[in-house]
Amino acid sequence: MMRFTKLYAPSTKEAPKDATLPSHIFLLRGGFIEQLGSGLYNFLPLGKRVLSKIQAIIKEEMDFAGAQEVALSFVTSAALWQESGRYNAFGKELLKFKDRKDNDFVLGPTHEEAMLSLVKNKITSYKQLPLHLYQFGLKFRDELRPRFGLLRCREFLMKDGYSFHSNEEDLGREFDLMHKTYSRILERLGLEFRAVEADSGAIGGSGSKEFMVLAKNGEDDILLCENCDYAANVEAAKRAKKTCDKQRPEANYASKFHTPNVKTIEALADFFKIDEFYTIKAVVKKAIYENESKLIVFFIRGCDELCDTKAQNACGALELINAEENELLDASLVPGFIGFIGLKNVDFYIDCELENEKQMIMGANEKDYHLIGIDVMNLNPERFKDLIEVKENDSCIKCGGKLKRSKGIEVGHIFKLGQKYSRAMNANFLDENGKSVPFYMGCYGMGVSRLVAVAVEASFDEKGCIWNKTLAPFVLEIILSNPKDSKAAHFANALYENLKKQNIEVLLDDRDERFGVKMNDFELMGFPYALIVGKGLENNELEFIERKNLQKSVINADEALNFLKDLL
Amino acid sequence: MMRFTKLYAPSTKEAPKDATLPSHIFLLRGGFIEQLGSGLYNFLPLGKRVLSKIQAIIKEEMDFAGAQEVALSFVTSAALWQESGRYNAFGKELLKFKDRKDNDFVLGPTHEEAMLSLVKNKITSYKQLPLHLYQFGLKFRDELRPRFGLLRCREFLMKDGYSFHSNEEDLGREFDLMHKTYSRILERLGLEFRAVEADSGAIGGSGSKEFMVLAKNGEDDILLCENCDYAANVEAAKRAKKTCDKQRPEANYASKFHTPNVKTIEALADFFKIDEFYTIKAVVKKAIYENESKLIVFFIRGCDELCDTKAQNACGALELINAEENELLDASLVPGFIGFIGLKNVDFYIDCELENEKQMIMGANEKDYHLIGIDVMNLNPERFKDLIEVKENDSCIKCGGKLKRSKGIEVGHIFKLGQKYSRAMNANFLDENGKSVPFYMGCYGMGVSRLVAVAVEASFDEKGCIWNKTLAPFVLEIILSNPKDSKAAHFANALYENLKKQNIEVLLDDRDERFGVKMNDFELMGFPYALIVGKGLENNELEFIERKNLQKSVINADEALNFLKDLL
Repeated sequence: MMRFTKLYAPSTKEAPKDATLPSHIFLLRGGFIEQLGSGLYNFLPLGKRVLSKIQAIIKEEMDFAGAQEVALSFVTSAALWQESGRYNAFGKELLKFKDRKDNDFVLGPTHEEAMLSLVKNKITSYKQLPLHLYQFGLKFRDELRPRFGLLRCREFLMKDGYSFHSNEEDLGREFDLMHKTYSRILERLGLEFRAVEADSGAIGGSGSKEFMVLAKNGEDDILLCENCDYAANVEAAKRAKKTCDKQRPEANYASKFHTPNVKTIEALADFFKIDEFYTIKAVVKKAIYENESKLIVFFIRGCDELCDTKAQNACGALELINAEENELLDASLVPGFIGFIGLKNVDFYIDCELENEKQMIMGANEKDYHLIGIDVMNLNPERFKDLIEVKENDSCIKCGGKLKRSKGIEVGHIFKLGQKYSRAMNANFLDENGKSVPFYMGCYGMGVSRLVAVAVEASFDEKGCIWNKTLAPFVLEIILSNPKDSKAAHFANALYENLKKQNIEVLLDDRDERFGVKMNDFELMGFPYALIVGKGLENNELEFIERKNLQKSVINADEALNFLKDLL
Repeated sequence: MMRFTKLYAPSTKEAPKDATLPSHIFLLRGGFIEQLGSGLYNFLPLGKRVLSKIQAIIKEEMDFAGAQEVALSFVTSAALWQESGRYNAFGKELLKFKDRKDNDFVLGPTHEEAMLSLVKNKITSYKQLPLHLYQFGLKFRDELRPRFGLLRCREFLMKDGYSFHSNEEDLGREFDLMHKTYSRILERLGLEFRAVEADSGAIGGSGSKEFMVLAKNGEDDILLCENCDYAANVEAAKRAKKTCDKQRPEANYASKFHTPNVKTIEALADFFKIDEFYTIKAVVKKAIYENESKLIVFFIRGCDELCDTKAQNACGALELINAEENELLDASLVPGFIGFIGLKNVDFYIDCELENEKQMIMGANEKDYHLIGIDVMNLNPERFKDLIEVKENDSCIKCGGKLKRSKGIEVGHIFKLGQKYSRAMNANFLDENGKSVPFYMGCYGMGVSRLVAVAVEASFDEKGCIWNKTLAPFVLEIILSNPKDSKAAHFANALYENLKKQNIEVLLDDRDERFGVKMNDFELMGFPYALIVGKGLENNELEFIERKNLQKSVINADEALNFLKDLL
């Protein structure tokens, strides 16, 4: 309940050039947020109202699920991160600093270590388990390229929860409960979402699910089965093993064949008149580790693409970057003709779909030569990893149905961490038999400030935001066309005061501005409904506008209060 | 509403050795908070519940006063602090760091600069004023000696508000409104407090008031008039000019007198058989500035003490430290015999109560000599400053009544900043005449996390915290004496479920622990009331305990629900 003349919502016509996404543009232009540096944002009153509403819903559902709210220090001792091994492993996104006494600290980008250290030596028996603690906490991740406004910024507000269990099954129960809880939160927020299989990344653990809000400008690619409920981030998607009904070539094992200048898979398939399915492609990457970097070759089917995240997980690197041709030559690799037979002093991995494949064609590690009739067998099983990127129209691993590709924005991620952190940090409890066991741990994150932007990505038009009633900073705007029209002003004020008494979140645009300016702000800021008090009042008529479709209707002034009370 | 078996509240018998204050000891022992480093604390569920209640009350009152909530980035660009000149002036408490791209940032210890930069170029006309924006934000101050738990920690939660006005009078109106608002907040929290005159410190501005909660362990000394409403922090207290009815000595102007070994005021008064009132004391301090440090002599009446804060303000130093004797000698000062006549190459200030005083005695700047018959006149008026510490029984500057000394803990501080920051940062608006004028600004801080500890300092006994109903994490604890007594367990559970339905914040101690352990936790954690369900139930009797006075009474089990509903 507020008058626009009092509200601090400095709207603008132009957005900064680097703003390309609707949420970024409209939230800045509508005066919801303000940028104060790369990846750093202030929430202005409109933005803060939306943020608080999201936070309140998350809190209700987390409390309902039995989690307990805490508030952990944002500034975290570096020692905890050294203990878990993530102080270096987290990379440059971890912001490190020293205090006046030269002690090392980090600005927590996530709080697994801090939360584990909190319960360590306090929770000592299985009888005290399970336990789920959560917080709404600031996080800082020093992104290399902060962008897209609130979607990829450096300081942000997150709901992060951490649960502790005496066994794997109980962790599974909590994981399922959080699956339900997150689903209920997103339903209440009015967002269309999918829970998808995900890569666990730097957080780690034995399994995770991402909650993706479907939005055409989403950063993430997800694959959804047309037939069943299978859904996965492309980084983690699996498929039923690919098959090919084209004829398989035949040759004696590892015959060497002269293939002058045949350096690409396309050229190779064309040369042998076979399908790319029967060729093996070598992709060379430079893997960065904490104290070294080295070239690694990934072998996949010629018709597939390497999935970088899977490749990185396969070799356990902190990061994979492209390898330059001269680096290949320095390592005695022959670009265009690399194969795993006769490969020397270079680590390699093979996509698991190639295991036991026969009659394949691949490079001979010699310029202008390929080997044909290759059987992919008798290799160390550790070499075989899931490396390939699942594509649209690949077959679902669960039901064989067709996979469809879609865009999503990650808003939540839940993890079964298992004993990864508790082992590293020696955080144990005594089980029923008096045996000391590391906690089974889960963690559950939801991007609270990010959800403000996601809600816009999920609902906007070319004029601005379209908030639903749950998230809108105000559900109704009364627009007084001409504040100098005293009869209209009197009516609008009385209605405003009446609605205030009903606790309806109403904004009265009482500014001395042109009507067009007021309408533009209404459309940009995207309150669900507007009621225009203008000249029509002489005939006892008001104009009612629904923001969603900008549909207008005329309502009787005498019935306005009851109409609005029913609606809101 | 919670069962103790689910609650994470790890209470302990012992507090760490460095915990000396009740709030520090009981909040740690009761599992409200946990220390994770010097001046860094985590809020556990009980502490977070209290914190949230305080925050909710502050929010209600701030919104009621027309302020609008925002949320500013904690990580703040160093450039803003350089612009205001505080980047260096704030000293080592300002935590500075660099991001991965080597840009300079600070962790905001306060947000005047950030808030001013937010409205700058957005609020351009007097028509858009006044405006008051506030937030609940983390702050970081890298204290040299963090101590006393939440009372002097490094990372803390603060409510900080900033208002902008087109003239001094309107700033005064908002300042008075915040005076009322803060008073109402503290009344609602159930705390006894005084609004006192205060030193404005590093924040600056033309006037400020501190809100002090009275508590015997308070860090601050405050002076309260017995007769009128005058109240001031000792750092800012004034008094009616001191007088003395003892005989004034008489001598020719500046006669030199041999006073062998008379180095103290006491010895000097004794030597001349006069009251210390007629002597002038020299106090030498080393003043630290941004780029230099130097000795400064402060002259005050022999019977007075120097007030360090006033002395620091007088000379505009960043810090004052004690001067060593050899430093005095290096500066050609004669310890024990310093006076302002013939003082060379050393800056000095004189307490304003000495201005125009006659027939005083002071050092001659020569070993074993004093000057007598000194008239303190014809000196540069800039030399005269308020330097002395007001003491108990001094006279009130407003009414002449007696001042009494008391202990307080600062919980809020409101400032009339005037144009200090807006001038430095060139933040202007156009006034009624189209003239560009720097904003008149106010700022208003309240220590939210600090209030959790303050509430304990204001209400505890030797056994633990004593929360009032407004702040208590739970208003009632039902203690089930023996969970194996199935009849009692049934009764306690049913009552608990009933109270839950009434939205009464009840905790059910259903732990399999000895009764003594449960009672100790109740007393330590300090919920307002306990209801014991024990053997008495056989006679339809329950024991009811009020935490405040530990008074016990017996109530009829059948009437328990109605009794509690009425009470809570």
